[in-house]
Amino acid sequence: MPLSEIVFRLGERNDLSQIIRLLADDSFSGDLESAQDVSTDRIPSAYQQAWEAVVASGENQILVAAHGVQVIAVLQLTMIPSLTLRGSRRAQIEGVRVASVYRGQGVGTQLMQWAIDLAKKENCLLVQLTMDRRRERAVRFYRRLGFVASHEGFKMQLDQQEGFGNG
Amino acid sequence: MPLSEIVFRLGERNDLSQIIRLLADDSFSGDLESAQDVSTDRIPSAYQQAWEAVVASGENQILVAAHGVQVIAVLQLTMIPSLTLRGSRRAQIEGVRVASVYRGQGVGTQLMQWAIDLAKKENCLLVQLTMDRRRERAVRFYRRLGFVASHEGFKMQLDQQEGFGNG
Repeated sequence: MPLSEIVFRLGERNDLSQIIRLLADDSFSGDLESAQDVSTDRIPSAYQQAWEAVVASGENQILVAAHGVQVIAVLQLTMIPSLTLRGSRRAQIEGVRVASVYRGQGVGTQLMQWAIDLAKKENCLLVQLTMDRRRERAVRFYRRLGFVASHEGFKMQLDQQEGFGNG
Repeated sequence: MPLSEIVFRLGERNDLSQIIRLLADDSFSGDLESAQDVSTDRIPSAYQQAWEAVVASGENQILVAAHGVQVIAVLQLTMIPSLTLRGSRRAQIEGVRVASVYRGQGVGTQLMQWAIDLAKKENCLLVQLTMDRRRERAVRFYRRLGFVASHEGFKMQLDQQEGFGNG
């Protein structure tokens, strides 16, 4: 697949079931998503509400890569106004996923590069993300993009659901 | 100082110069803040603009601890709508600072606990933060609160400013 066939664009409401399938196609956090419901295209209401909240927020965007009608990669970009670092904006990236059959072909790199470019245009001083330590291969991916693993990423669950580890 | 004398409340515009002094009173990132300007109470415009952006955002709050008219601790709480983890909201904490003379007395713990309680009330599934690895003592602080250091925290600077490392 030549990379020129891939379109990088904002996610649309019609992409949602494919995005949820992408989130579920993940060996670390996939079992925490609801692939079984999505396979019948009945999208669980929690995802629908989350979609509406992301769209309504002026500080959040969903970026996707698409190959024809197929959504093959996704990430969420959040702009955070902040008092620290002399009142700098930060851009934060969450939920980076590339469809397993499309990995290793530069799709993730290009999607991340677009997110970084958007952060620059929005005058962010910093782009940040956290990555589950079990995603060993992804460390090289983020280092190549120019990220530095300078911080510890702490998480605390607030309910009884067990064993998730999002990256 | 008994903890009962401390008031935990939302930050107000009048607190801003004290908050900036707190951010500058930090051995890891303090030199990146503008303490010299603030000491004359001429608040740099970047901080003022950041304050307006945080207040205007429905997803960000500044929490402070005050002892009389003195602001002695601060943190920023951001609510992030998210598609991952079945469309869960996340709460993120940034810029945690306690005035050096007030450390070790439970002020930071109580401020963090209030932030965690707010996250629960807002139906967040997760509270997250990143911490500069050089803040070795803070690791125990966050562990005691119930955080797990499960993730790598990656940062990328987008301009030429050197050597900052916010926690």
